[in-house]
Amino acid sequence: MYFVKIRESMMIAHSLKSPFFGPAQNVHGATFVVDVTFKTTNLDEHNVVIDIGLAHKIVKDILAKLDYQNLDDLDVFKGKLTTTEFIARYIYDEISLMMKNDFKGKINVSIKENPNAWAGFEED
Amino acid sequence: MYFVKIRESMMIAHSLKSPFFGPAQNVHGATFVVDVTFKTTNLDEHNVVIDIGLAHKIVKDILAKLDYQNLDDLDVFKGKLTTTEFIARYIYDEISLMMKNDFKGKINVSIKENPNAWAGFEED
Amino acid sequence: MYFVKIRESMMIAHSLKSPFFGPAQNVHGATFVVDVTFKTTNLDEHNVVIDIGLAHKIVKDILAKLDYQNLDDLDVFKGKLTTTEFIARYIYDEISLMMKNDFKGKINVSIKENPNAWAGFEED
Amino acid sequence: MYFVKIRESMMIAHSLKSPFFGPAQNVHGATFVVDVTFKTTNLDEHNVVIDIGLAHKIVKDILAKLDYQNLDDLDVFKGKLTTTEFIARYIYDEISLMMKNDFKGKINVSIKENPNAWAGFEED
Amino acid sequence: MYFVKIRESMMIAHSLKSPFFGPAQNVHGATFVVDVTFKTTNLDEHNVVIDIGLAHKIVKDILAKLDYQNLDDLDVFKGKLTTTEFIARYIYDEISLMMKNDFKGKINVSIKENPNAWAGFEED
Amino acid sequence: MYFVKIRESMMIAHSLKSPFFGPAQNVHGATFVVDVTFKTTNLDEHNVVIDIGLAHKIVKDILAKLDYQNLDDLDVFKGKLTTTEFIARYIYDEISLMMKNDFKGKINVSIKENPNAWAGFEED
Repeated sequence: MYFVKIRESMMIAHSLKSPFFGPAQNVHGATFVVDVTFKTTNLDEHNVVIDIGLAHKIVKDILAKLDYQNLDDLDVFKGKLTTTEFIARYIYDEISLMMKNDFKGKINVSIKENPNAWAGFEED
Repeated sequence: MYFVKIRESMMIAHSLKSPFFGPAQNVHGATFVVDVTFKTTNLDEHNVVIDIGLAHKIVKDILAKLDYQNLDDLDVFKGKLTTTEFIARYIYDEISLMMKNDFKGKINVSIKENPNAWAGFEED
Repeated sequence: MYFVKIRESMMIAHSLKSPFFGPAQNVHGATFVVDVTFKTTNLDEHNVVIDIGLAHKIVKDILAKLDYQNLDDLDVFKGKLTTTEFIARYIYDEISLMMKNDFKGKINVSIKENPNAWAGFEED
Repeated sequence: MYFVKIRESMMIAHSLKSPFFGPAQNVHGATFVVDVTFKTTNLDEHNVVIDIGLAHKIVKDILAKLDYQNLDDLDVFKGKLTTTEFIARYIYDEISLMMKNDFKGKINVSIKENPNAWAGFEED
Repeated sequence: MYFVKIRESMMIAHSLKSPFFGPAQNVHGATFVVDVTFKTTNLDEHNVVIDIGLAHKIVKDILAKLDYQNLDDLDVFKGKLTTTEFIARYIYDEISLMMKNDFKGKINVSIKENPNAWAGFEED
Repeated sequence: MYFVKIRESMMIAHSLKSPFFGPAQNVHGATFVVDVTFKTTNLDEHNVVIDIGLAHKIVKDILAKLDYQNLDDLDVFKGKLTTTEFIARYIYDEISLMMKNDFKGKINVSIKENPNAWAGFEED
């Protein structure tokens, strides 16, 4: 299995509206460092997993809709608990949708939210 | 010159209310990775620059007042442009105040706000 | 598959009493940076893999029994070769025991022992 | 599943001779930070996955043939598109060949080529 | 003294044509991770050291002329030993020239060339 | 001012025999990641601050005397509190002695002892 991993980041605010989250119920924020991994069984005719320029562009475009935003204000997340796990899955779904014609392998998304915590969604 | 550097972090939201800041005028957020450096000419009788446990405690206590907060809502920052440079200076001032009896050397504060940007205040 | 990864660290001494280990037969030490990953198929009702505060607390409590210790002096490791692989498995077993009622997914433990070496145990 | 991961690096030049690669058709270069992971189901009698000293030596020896080279000039890569994915597989094949008598587990190779991009080959 | 530091990177090839450099006399390459620091005594009316967007743009523009190039082929470096120190100074000179009207403070350039080596030029 | 920085590491045990150090009075250990910076006003005829190969060799040789050791057992540290600050100064003194004929600039030593703590000695 070959893989390519790319890194982009975004700076968002949000709040997690359940007593379960303690102080994270407040509007606070995070720098999300987003690693997206593309996996395939074989390389293509250019000896690559994916056009890495295209991959960077698609991930940047998806993150641009969230970057410098308060996620609480976005329609797509209304009434949702926007945990890091949830955001990782959202990014995974967006990438999968955008690339369904260009990439047939597996996609994973990992988000570092602070020096001691990560969350993500891995396609099985 | 000897030094000790410690690292703590916090997750804040804020907005920068001037057209100068473009998209950062929105409420957004950041993980601020805060490095505080203490410098002295000589070591004390325990061969240290400072009691590192005390230093961690003081920095944690100062950051705890900002962590998981929207800086726009805090009285101390009302009407201020809470840039990373400004926050670094604020943390420097708070540490200096708390430690004025315990530490006679110089203090620097550096904040990493994303994988490609830092700001800080260095005591000359 | 969703995951959450948390990072804690500890500073231990030990010796590896077999000629196989060359200079590591001496009492020496390491900063072990310990990454623990929790994986589940689905998120719970709070959109999380696990209560990350609880996870940090349990990992910290387990590491606290080893931190600032010479592993050679601890009864639990008497007569054992406390390689990084072995310690990773020990931590995995302790976490599994502590969380058997609270977490039904898979747990992995990875330890960075220096800038060029890691070891770990991954639940299959 | 236990694992050990080691890190070595090399500094190479190359060019990717296809219009697909845009500016990377030029002779340019990269610092390749190479992580090699060895995985086994059980530890051996020394509680290790592999003799880490031997592993470092073999990986260093393999990288030494590429380090400070222009890959375009090496016979082994004549007419090949030496993408990072391809180089990862080449290193994997070389390690597998060198270790076939000493290691029966699985081997993965991951290469970081810049702060925002990685590629690799993982044995399934 | 306040500072802002930004990070960009480039992937270059070159050779160092003197026996002093041993294997680095060959055409080889490097990922240069370039950190540029801007320092001023006071913040401006926006509470910043510099317009960080402008700083990123200028540094990117300067690096773009070197990125994906063999430095041996560029007129500006003909007959020069393009060590990392020398390149850091070149980048410093270019930034200073581009910003002489917009920035009156001090500028430092630091380049990471591999996980164990950096070089740079610091304005005194 | 030009600089070159190199990184090496070592794995040591020690104890700090004063109640001031709390749990660090126990024999424990650390991976010390040692960064040594060499600074000069001008580059030499090879456009370098220092022969980086020589610098790596000297630093490695000095660390080799401490690596895989319990510092409590070494004559040179008998009766000393081997804090990270103290060890940084010791390494600085050793390097200065070894290089007094080969290097006329300034030397700094910084040691990372865990993900959240550093200490060092900087020549003024």
